[in-house]
Amino acid sequence: MNVITKPPRKPESSDITTGPLPASRKIYLGGVIHKDIRVPMREISLHETANEPPLAVYDTSGPYTDPAQAIDIEAGLNRLREPWILARGDVEEYDGRGVRPEDNNASAEQLVPEFPAKRRPLRAKGAAVTQAKYAREGTITPEMEFIAIRENLGREHDPARAKARIAEGESFGAEIPEYVTPEFVRDEVARGRAIIPANINHPEIEPQIIGRNFLIKINANIGNSAVTSSVAEEVDKMVWATRWGADNVMDLSTGRNIHNIRGWIIRNSPVPIGTVPIYQALEKVEKPEDLTWEIFRDTIIEQCEQGVDYFTVHAGVRLKYIHLTAERTTGIVSRGGSIMAKWCLAHHRENFIYDNFEELCDIMAAYDVSYSLGDGLRPGCAADANDEAQFKELDTQGELNKIAWDKDVQVMNEGPGHVPMHKIKANIERQLDVCGEAPFYTLGPLVTDIAPGYDHITSGIGAAMIGWYGTAMLCYVTPKEHLGLPDRDDVKTGVITYRIAAHAADIAKGHPGAQGRDDALSRARFEFRWQDQFNLGLDAETAKDFHDQTLPKDAHKAAHFCSMCGPKFCAMEITNQVREYAEKGMAEMSDKFEQAGGELYSEDYEGKAADALEGGEEAKPAAE
Amino acid sequence: MNVITKPPRKPESSDITTGPLPASRKIYLGGVIHKDIRVPMREISLHETANEPPLAVYDTSGPYTDPAQAIDIEAGLNRLREPWILARGDVEEYDGRGVRPEDNNASAEQLVPEFPAKRRPLRAKGAAVTQAKYAREGTITPEMEFIAIRENLGREHDPARAKARIAEGESFGAEIPEYVTPEFVRDEVARGRAIIPANINHPEIEPQIIGRNFLIKINANIGNSAVTSSVAEEVDKMVWATRWGADNVMDLSTGRNIHNIRGWIIRNSPVPIGTVPIYQALEKVEKPEDLTWEIFRDTIIEQCEQGVDYFTVHAGVRLKYIHLTAERTTGIVSRGGSIMAKWCLAHHRENFIYDNFEELCDIMAAYDVSYSLGDGLRPGCAADANDEAQFKELDTQGELNKIAWDKDVQVMNEGPGHVPMHKIKANIERQLDVCGEAPFYTLGPLVTDIAPGYDHITSGIGAAMIGWYGTAMLCYVTPKEHLGLPDRDDVKTGVITYRIAAHAADIAKGHPGAQGRDDALSRARFEFRWQDQFNLGLDAETAKDFHDQTLPKDAHKAAHFCSMCGPKFCAMEITNQVREYAEKGMAEMSDKFEQAGGELYSEDYEGKAADALEGGEEAKPAAE
Repeated sequence: MNVITKPPRKPESSDITTGPLPASRKIYLGGVIHKDIRVPMREISLHETANEPPLAVYDTSGPYTDPAQAIDIEAGLNRLREPWILARGDVEEYDGRGVRPEDNNASAEQLVPEFPAKRRPLRAKGAAVTQAKYAREGTITPEMEFIAIRENLGREHDPARAKARIAEGESFGAEIPEYVTPEFVRDEVARGRAIIPANINHPEIEPQIIGRNFLIKINANIGNSAVTSSVAEEVDKMVWATRWGADNVMDLSTGRNIHNIRGWIIRNSPVPIGTVPIYQALEKVEKPEDLTWEIFRDTIIEQCEQGVDYFTVHAGVRLKYIHLTAERTTGIVSRGGSIMAKWCLAHHRENFIYDNFEELCDIMAAYDVSYSLGDGLRPGCAADANDEAQFKELDTQGELNKIAWDKDVQVMNEGPGHVPMHKIKANIERQLDVCGEAPFYTLGPLVTDIAPGYDHITSGIGAAMIGWYGTAMLCYVTPKEHLGLPDRDDVKTGVITYRIAAHAADIAKGHPGAQGRDDALSRARFEFRWQDQFNLGLDAETAKDFHDQTLPKDAHKAAHFCSMCGPKFCAMEITNQVREYAEKGMAEMSDKFEQAGGELYSEDYEGKAADALEGGEEAKPAAE
Repeated sequence: MNVITKPPRKPESSDITTGPLPASRKIYLGGVIHKDIRVPMREISLHETANEPPLAVYDTSGPYTDPAQAIDIEAGLNRLREPWILARGDVEEYDGRGVRPEDNNASAEQLVPEFPAKRRPLRAKGAAVTQAKYAREGTITPEMEFIAIRENLGREHDPARAKARIAEGESFGAEIPEYVTPEFVRDEVARGRAIIPANINHPEIEPQIIGRNFLIKINANIGNSAVTSSVAEEVDKMVWATRWGADNVMDLSTGRNIHNIRGWIIRNSPVPIGTVPIYQALEKVEKPEDLTWEIFRDTIIEQCEQGVDYFTVHAGVRLKYIHLTAERTTGIVSRGGSIMAKWCLAHHRENFIYDNFEELCDIMAAYDVSYSLGDGLRPGCAADANDEAQFKELDTQGELNKIAWDKDVQVMNEGPGHVPMHKIKANIERQLDVCGEAPFYTLGPLVTDIAPGYDHITSGIGAAMIGWYGTAMLCYVTPKEHLGLPDRDDVKTGVITYRIAAHAADIAKGHPGAQGRDDALSRARFEFRWQDQFNLGLDAETAKDFHDQTLPKDAHKAAHFCSMCGPKFCAMEITNQVREYAEKGMAEMSDKFEQAGGELYSEDYEGKAADALEGGEEAKPAAE
């Protein structure tokens, strides 16, 4: 085996992608109940001709896009929640379990050093220290107020407008508020309809909520590379995903240096980090059959102390369901699900996570780690969608939700996967029913299996639909799905595809603040404010690059024409005439237009742009 | 103005993209009623270990993917429908209108020669010579039988299986047949629920049907480039789009050489060609106000004689609707719609196409050119969706449909555009209602406006949904939409995105033959037949390329592991154990699995692949 062995390189913060997005600056909104809250938003400035204020948008990117904040990945991010956590007076520092060789797969070279700024972990002194606990006690935490401000996207409360937006949407039973108050956040968390993933040992996060009555969130998966020569590269994977809009990152690392790499990621992550602890547990043994509850529990504590915010656990893969997958086209495709199935079969015993679920709840309650109850028997293809194995496990997820709630542990449920369009709705309806409206967190689903290489699109279609129907968080899929490991471009493509899906669903649900960005961009498009159109989009750089390929001159950024109709004729300019016509009446205007018709024609085009455009339209799909 | 002037270059057939897709060969299925029919299909061969017959799929690519057929673009394609057309005895040759300088925008250099193999055009001797006319008379034409065979995708009629598929789907009132018979095709065309775009002067096409009860079709837009140095490049744009699955191509050229370039495209196109004749008409005058019914009619005849299969005409943009767009966010965004609006305003007169619609029908009936009734007032952003302007025009489309049907002219209706998800269904429901179930042909729709650069995805989501609800044809959108002119890669991305949307919708509707390809690919995926997985997908080359980036060795194409779990552990292998377990009973198997657990671990991995995989999973979204 050719392991590339290099001495650990000193982490370089300069390797991290930083700096604001185009035309954007970071603003911070203050709290009312909790005065020290500073909620980050990204404000996109518009051209002066717009006569519009800047547009504030949700910002997942953390301090990395704020030039006022120095980034030092060896120190980690500012621990903004620490005073809030300590002020509650219900936690204590302790020595913790310490890092053990097997945590990093000791048989391999130690390529990645431990995160240098060590601290003793926190845990509950007594009962649960979860946001759910506080919510049920009636306490509005700083996290809850932070989230309320964040979810309103910086808009003023305009009840009439919000009511109209909600009425126009189709929410499928979601109860979207006109304006998000801290009390609304508290109530949703108390009812278990939303979760705030926020380990007390991850005070660096900017709090975020996952629930059907809030903006839909998206998750990006990353994982470590065994041959990495730079810790900064690992941290930058997380930074890169959040820069483009990932609300959450799951670290699905396997192999060497798992513990140490995760430490660097968590200490530098402004978003919640999820993991699948069974992956690391498996690295500590030879094979799945060797796993034990004790090894798993120890891994859980290791990760609780480190600051993981939520755990995917496949507790619903019960022994009695496994044979239900026998006749499937693609059997069991979940890695975690198959590990547990293998263990159950080998020992002919019940899933040890299911059997020890209450104890697991007690541990997680002491750190406020949330459950993401895995769907280990999810379908791996259209043919297996919505089968008995899948839905039996979902029933068990519902049963486990109740136990978690009894223990004040926050919980969401994972869902499929591969589901044709006509079978999507049944998934969310059944989940809402058997899981008591706990947040649903789905992977896509892919609506067809025939497009390897394009599964961000096959799944983006399903994600938009299931998001509309009520899914609270969407796990992204990249173009490399089923084929290989995503690179940087794939991660960006996956994140943006899922931002599209989540946003389209927010609009369709009738979220009062969602369509504002579309409307601002459409006004920019109509008024030929090209730079505003780019900057208001999800990827200003790509939009500008595409525009430059056809009309490369800077002057054309201000041109009152586009490549659809070209400089000789402009569809959108007609509307100005229509408006005048509508105002002044038809009879009077007829003569005037006859005379003034020539005004629409610009004579000042020249050179390359004119050559490219006049008769050079390769396709103008929006302009037939 | 820098016009690049070159002497016309001799067209090179070798510049055209030809050759079969990977693992594919062309097969031809014969007719029963019409013995000379040869319906092309693409047959994808599978690895011998699959123990499955080759899979036949719908093939839009024409002779270009058949190595047995020589391609000579100066001669054009084989005129396969010519004997069928002449055998009906209802057409006559005549001198035709001849090419005039203004047809090619005479002010410019003549860069593109006329298509060399000139023929006299055909037209009806008397009444309509349309497929609708024949259908209503009870005649099953060769075109209809060809289509029936094509739509069945080479499957044997299996009534029980087909019934089950249809029952499982959700068709929203579509009447999808268990098996497509020539009589079913005839009946759908007779009822106006489907059209067969097939100009008698375009005998080269492989007949195709557009209707809600058939497989959903997709259209790709292309257009000429004024500075082209090669006619072959122009022809290849069409060939390239159909290679990846475009059922239809619209030639939206403007500027110079329109007539001549279109001639080369039509003579070499195996798929129907649509145009927007007002674009060419506008090139013949100075400005929209100068247009007249006579100039438009002359352009129509020019294109009928040349062989265009369907015309987008914006006859529904009536004078009285124009003021309804005054308060819109983005006014009128359709190029054809705004040309007509401009004309109506300037003259304060009714749309001249609307006023002369009956005469237009008579002309089109004489050549069997179909209508694609344009939606010139379609919304250009989410804010304008489903407004009064849009729906009033739709009502007029419905009124015009009836006139077309009375004249035995085939007709479909164009639809939007930009529509948030929750407003999509109302579009198809209203269209079915007011347009008497005539086929609907939509552009996307885009479900959000915030992602310029990614509008193939924003629109692919809407396209999949509206296709499911009942749209018969989907007009593609490329990543360059709103920004610039699509290049070759953009066209491919647009076509594949829309093949995904159409296919996902076919599955959801319950089309009996649709999911077969998904199932075959899923079996290949599960059995680690990597090459089969690639070849059964929409883009085998990209899938293989993505796989090679992570696992480049040829040996890994046969590997029983993938980059999700790596060689040390395989989720899918578990299922083989599950099957044995389910068969033999739990008690007996428990011991056996305990002993045999090690078998899952492959020891023969090495080198780069192992380095990349062991602990090298950057993201494994399907495998948590």
